[in-house]
Amino acid sequence: MKAIIYHGPHDFRVDDVPDPKIQAPTDAVVRIERTAICGSDLHMYHGEPMPVTGFAMGHEFLGTIEDVGADVRRFQPGQRVLVACTIGCGICSFCQDHLWSACSEATPFGPLTNIFGSPLNAGGQAEGARVPFADGTLFPIPEGLDDEDVLFLTDILPTGTMGADLAEVGPGDVAVVFGCGPVGTFAQQAALVRGAACVVAVDLDDGRLAKATARGCLALNPERDSLEEVVAGLTEGRGADCAIEAVGKPALVQAAIDVVRPGGRVSVIGVVSDDVTLSFLQDITGKNITLRSGIVNPQHYWSELLALIRSGRLDPKEIITHRMPLTDGVRGYEIFDAHEDDVLKVVLEP
Amino acid sequence: MKAIIYHGPHDFRVDDVPDPKIQAPTDAVVRIERTAICGSDLHMYHGEPMPVTGFAMGHEFLGTIEDVGADVRRFQPGQRVLVACTIGCGICSFCQDHLWSACSEATPFGPLTNIFGSPLNAGGQAEGARVPFADGTLFPIPEGLDDEDVLFLTDILPTGTMGADLAEVGPGDVAVVFGCGPVGTFAQQAALVRGAACVVAVDLDDGRLAKATARGCLALNPERDSLEEVVAGLTEGRGADCAIEAVGKPALVQAAIDVVRPGGRVSVIGVVSDDVTLSFLQDITGKNITLRSGIVNPQHYWSELLALIRSGRLDPKEIITHRMPLTDGVRGYEIFDAHEDDVLKVVLEP
Amino acid sequence: MKAIIYHGPHDFRVDDVPDPKIQAPTDAVVRIERTAICGSDLHMYHGEPMPVTGFAMGHEFLGTIEDVGADVRRFQPGQRVLVACTIGCGICSFCQDHLWSACSEATPFGPLTNIFGSPLNAGGQAEGARVPFADGTLFPIPEGLDDEDVLFLTDILPTGTMGADLAEVGPGDVAVVFGCGPVGTFAQQAALVRGAACVVAVDLDDGRLAKATARGCLALNPERDSLEEVVAGLTEGRGADCAIEAVGKPALVQAAIDVVRPGGRVSVIGVVSDDVTLSFLQDITGKNITLRSGIVNPQHYWSELLALIRSGRLDPKEIITHRMPLTDGVRGYEIFDAHEDDVLKVVLEP
Amino acid sequence: MKAIIYHGPHDFRVDDVPDPKIQAPTDAVVRIERTAICGSDLHMYHGEPMPVTGFAMGHEFLGTIEDVGADVRRFQPGQRVLVACTIGCGICSFCQDHLWSACSEATPFGPLTNIFGSPLNAGGQAEGARVPFADGTLFPIPEGLDDEDVLFLTDILPTGTMGADLAEVGPGDVAVVFGCGPVGTFAQQAALVRGAACVVAVDLDDGRLAKATARGCLALNPERDSLEEVVAGLTEGRGADCAIEAVGKPALVQAAIDVVRPGGRVSVIGVVSDDVTLSFLQDITGKNITLRSGIVNPQHYWSELLALIRSGRLDPKEIITHRMPLTDGVRGYEIFDAHEDDVLKVVLEP
Repeated sequence: MKAIIYHGPHDFRVDDVPDPKIQAPTDAVVRIERTAICGSDLHMYHGEPMPVTGFAMGHEFLGTIEDVGADVRRFQPGQRVLVACTIGCGICSFCQDHLWSACSEATPFGPLTNIFGSPLNAGGQAEGARVPFADGTLFPIPEGLDDEDVLFLTDILPTGTMGADLAEVGPGDVAVVFGCGPVGTFAQQAALVRGAACVVAVDLDDGRLAKATARGCLALNPERDSLEEVVAGLTEGRGADCAIEAVGKPALVQAAIDVVRPGGRVSVIGVVSDDVTLSFLQDITGKNITLRSGIVNPQHYWSELLALIRSGRLDPKEIITHRMPLTDGVRGYEIFDAHEDDVLKVVLEP
Repeated sequence: MKAIIYHGPHDFRVDDVPDPKIQAPTDAVVRIERTAICGSDLHMYHGEPMPVTGFAMGHEFLGTIEDVGADVRRFQPGQRVLVACTIGCGICSFCQDHLWSACSEATPFGPLTNIFGSPLNAGGQAEGARVPFADGTLFPIPEGLDDEDVLFLTDILPTGTMGADLAEVGPGDVAVVFGCGPVGTFAQQAALVRGAACVVAVDLDDGRLAKATARGCLALNPERDSLEEVVAGLTEGRGADCAIEAVGKPALVQAAIDVVRPGGRVSVIGVVSDDVTLSFLQDITGKNITLRSGIVNPQHYWSELLALIRSGRLDPKEIITHRMPLTDGVRGYEIFDAHEDDVLKVVLEP
Repeated sequence: MKAIIYHGPHDFRVDDVPDPKIQAPTDAVVRIERTAICGSDLHMYHGEPMPVTGFAMGHEFLGTIEDVGADVRRFQPGQRVLVACTIGCGICSFCQDHLWSACSEATPFGPLTNIFGSPLNAGGQAEGARVPFADGTLFPIPEGLDDEDVLFLTDILPTGTMGADLAEVGPGDVAVVFGCGPVGTFAQQAALVRGAACVVAVDLDDGRLAKATARGCLALNPERDSLEEVVAGLTEGRGADCAIEAVGKPALVQAAIDVVRPGGRVSVIGVVSDDVTLSFLQDITGKNITLRSGIVNPQHYWSELLALIRSGRLDPKEIITHRMPLTDGVRGYEIFDAHEDDVLKVVLEP
Repeated sequence: MKAIIYHGPHDFRVDDVPDPKIQAPTDAVVRIERTAICGSDLHMYHGEPMPVTGFAMGHEFLGTIEDVGADVRRFQPGQRVLVACTIGCGICSFCQDHLWSACSEATPFGPLTNIFGSPLNAGGQAEGARVPFADGTLFPIPEGLDDEDVLFLTDILPTGTMGADLAEVGPGDVAVVFGCGPVGTFAQQAALVRGAACVVAVDLDDGRLAKATARGCLALNPERDSLEEVVAGLTEGRGADCAIEAVGKPALVQAAIDVVRPGGRVSVIGVVSDDVTLSFLQDITGKNITLRSGIVNPQHYWSELLALIRSGRLDPKEIITHRMPLTDGVRGYEIFDAHEDDVLKVVLEP
């Protein structure tokens, strides 16, 4: 089958690779019908070389089950399914506590080793994929929903939603979201769904800010306007109730801490590769702040988000700017990496 | 001054009564600019005679402070203020825990004795009112908001919102609201604000149901459609996540219990005067249900609801169907009591 | 094998019955090493006749796995295991939300049809039992713990603990527990573990009250002392923070509602077979009360309770007053039903 | 009157200073009956010079009201009262949300400017003190409690308790507390009150560790034993559920993050003056961690802690190692600063 294979930074290729097969009795094999390129794939595209090459990229995908192992109880061939980016066995104590990301079975080498599109788990920018622990990792797609309605349930829609939950966005809140990329967009939507009175969307890209305005946010370009002043005006000087960092920069983690009021909550859903230096006395302690981050657990959000999509209260499709065949996926990476053409999200069709 | 005075069931009159005066150092006197008739006023209009007559009716009102007692710290004459229907001292342990309704100071004879428009506390369907414990009972109206934007913050908008909170409405929920009257309307709005995927609005009045549809609910007339079937269809047969009774009938409390799934939450914000007989074994125990009710604490909801009104996410004015001078208030009661003229809410101008 | 078989009210017999066998691929067969008689078994002992006879009684038992079906993933023969009284598949949406009691798979005829010791599920007062949905219903017993250390984890220790959770017992609370039987005892322990400043234990049996005093409660016999006065003295007249009904009588549900303060929480873990008539206006609404009940989900509490038992902070064994061979179980029922001999809990050894 | 006056680092003196007087109508004047030296006083004792000198030290004190201003509603002269270290007006929106530490009125220059014993607010290591915003800052001491029973309610007992709350210690948890000083001791007590199955108390001082063992903790000296191994043994390798840093060192903040399991909670109640550098990708994000710190709000904890002290479940006195007259207070500082004589807490009597 065809797959986008990692050969090193800036060296991704569409290769022919062997078809996936059942290897363990809890596996399923999925024929992939839609997949996407994620911002975190770009970290591998332009980052430090990985110790291993030759694996398929991608952790946002859905499709139809072709085969299941003997111990798979919930699924049969022919079912159309979502695939969580975070593989989980479904029955260990972490999975039972809705922390599939820390699954005792699926994270043999610690955190982050149960993500698709990595040396350990061939990814889904491909025509097919082996899905370990199918019972804990798949979810049936309800009838009446198109691929693009639900594709982002596999990672970034739950990630944005988790951002709102970790920041405890609630009714009447003033919430600041740093970043209007795909994840920031979904964090903004989730904050609105949770009843935020005002979501301040911060970005430097005016095209993205215009979209944030259209979805009901107060868009703010910090090169033009003072975030501090705008938030002070909204809150009688108190500060925002919560803030969500959806970019991945230490300076924005600090900005999120600065913008919230005493007792405020800050969540970080951007991938922050660099160390972050914090003042407890002045900031975290002095302002009684709650700071959270985390790996997403899409499984936790599926029933909530499917209900919202079916009732029309959420429309994840809004972020798709580019659609192309899987075989053009290398071009998709180039466009996304270069921020060409107002790209927000590239979807690939195998 | 003029006031609507209780002389007995079906005998309310606009009388001339003495102007209110400061009686305790924690009092304020408010010149009333807008007031309304509440469904709970109707309980006194057509219910059992009260032991005392001659007091002013009404617990939904706002206006401008004319005078304050020596111990009032937060307010001065000239300020435009909301008046909570539930009087609270603001500093006892109950008030500090956001249960002004149980204030140790303001409830000398137990629950419900700190409500305006009762033998103990002259009400606000009048040109002015004495407000006991002003610091715990008033709130300044922010600039830029009209009387009708905020009038219902004094009781029924917080009541409807409390209904959603007591039922723990959350993102993605299917929530059933029994009743599309003023309180039911606000419960529906609050459930939508909290991210309910679907709010099923139940009523027998098709005019009210049409308005529920317009505000984003799934309207259901149980004389035509089966609530059980509709909810089963929305929830793969599980049952609703939560239900809110906003009418005040024992049969609807039972219906709310019946419609929720195992683990569901039921809140009762209708005034249920009759006893309610429940099966624990089959219902409350058998389905692991949480059941809550309560007297509203408007003070708890003011900052949340003002933020939502200012940002345009809530518009409480939508329920006003009738506006008339205070001096026509007796006619207002007749219209409201008789359900004439598609009445939903009567607002009075002193 | 031997088992205590239901032949009708007051007609339980130790019969020879066929050995249990795997019937579905998710089954396990357990050789039972310790079991007990539960207060809810007595409801069948002296209650209305069941429509069906001939099944084994008992839903509190543990033992060693003898056989497992092909789809059982977590367990193998030879493992020593706890058996939850509430059978759950472990993977449906209810089980994933920790409501095994409402399992979509294991409750074919609605609530309460997934309990052992019933026409649908042969019970554990026997030498062995078939355990449906083993992966969702069993838990491995950690080394170093005796049978009697953990036997009550199968039902009544989690039930008492759930009582404290449903009443939201927290640090510094004054909590009232109605009933000092086995479930009441564990509710008292759980309230103390959760930091209650004072647990008022109410019973008419002075022997049971003496034990409550020994475990750190304030014991109260309402025939001698006024609960209302004692609680008023403890709370400066406010009322208890929460109350737990652990007997199963409508009058005590009402007493629990009466004893709590405004904003109080009431849980009902006694089996209340009779209807309960409540005043909302005066009680539930007037006092802003939360009322909860539920079927226990032992699975939810296993890790918490095992940790507390292992560290010595909980000792469930304290309630055992009688130990006898399974073959004397009919005598055990007589003793328990007649409250003979200060009986609190009868444990049977197959 | 006599007071311990700040003249600079290592230069504290017992001076004669003017008696305190009412300056604002919301003030009270308290004659001090017991006070203590806090670990955070030591930061001023051996830290950077303050920009201002000449003020009285101390923020842990209680006494009897001598005078009140015209607007004080809750207190009269003659009442015995606790004084919160954190001054709050009691009626602003922050105070109403139980964040007196961020009081809009009492923090004219931002966080931490409403603490006693600072250039802005003369402290309580003195014979008397002016208490701003008495209604929000004082609490009546119930009869039957000695000064030493309740003295630490003014700061460090609530601080330790807050540490347990910010770390969300719950029943059955394995909680690690770094530090067995006064605040660590109270954090350990609070974790036990909240039902922790095991509190691992970490310190290098074997005398302090012996006391931790006596209060029910598992004492661990990291120079002798591996914290990681001990916790792994307690948790089947998962990691602690939560950790509390009660020392104030960046390396221990990191150690707390390292010791918790995925999904764990970390609170920091030590005063961390130095910056802390964190890895999000590996730690906060990779392990889905919640990190919290804060200024204490003693007011929030008074009713809970008084109830626990009165019922005998907490005994704060256990930490007192030294008692001396206020006039010997300079010697008290020397002892405390030098860790002489197994000092844990020095109490001063004016």
